[in-house]
Amino acid sequence: MTRERLEEIRAQLDEINLEILELLSRRAELVQEIGDLKKRKGTERFDPIREKEMLDRLVAANPGPFDDSTVRHLFKQIFQASLGLMEEEKKELLV
Amino acid sequence: MTRERLEEIRAQLDEINLEILELLSRRAELVQEIGDLKKRKGTERFDPIREKEMLDRLVAANPGPFDDSTVRHLFKQIFQASLGLMEEEKKELLV
Repeated sequence: MTRERLEEIRAQLDEINLEILELLSRRAELVQEIGDLKKRKGTERFDPIREKEMLDRLVAANPGPFDDSTVRHLFKQIFQASLGLMEEEKKELLV
Repeated sequence: MTRERLEEIRAQLDEINLEILELLSRRAELVQEIGDLKKRKGTERFDPIREKEMLDRLVAANPGPFDDSTVRHLFKQIFQASLGLMEEEKKELLV
């Protein structure tokens, strides 16, 4: 019974992992598009006010069990990785 | 036009953020359940082989634009945060 339930949860985790990956990837593409738009307008790509706004919105919607600081930490990592993508693109343009 | 598209993307990002948060939270609940099952069986909660397996599966399914090392990094953060939840629970039991 326990063994079966464990396998069941693991299958669910694998599925959720892939769903998260899909959303992260779609998110990254949108951030790239924002980067392109901002480049054309000549505005700075990192927007700390917008980042704070997103984090506050996430914390307000946090259903648990992660505490708010963990939610902030995880999403900051996600935001940073997306910013990293834009930086890479910049570097490529300089080559 | 650009301004409009920027607002549109931002609205999409907010939506995706919330979807990711929802999946992360559901994932964390499942990990807590695994922790409980393992506690009852007396087995170690952290399973490096299972973690590697999950990471390999994610990298194999990575559609980009994140590179594989970024996918690994982000999911390691997620796994670590979930493990953190189990640790907290352990501490509470010791109080």
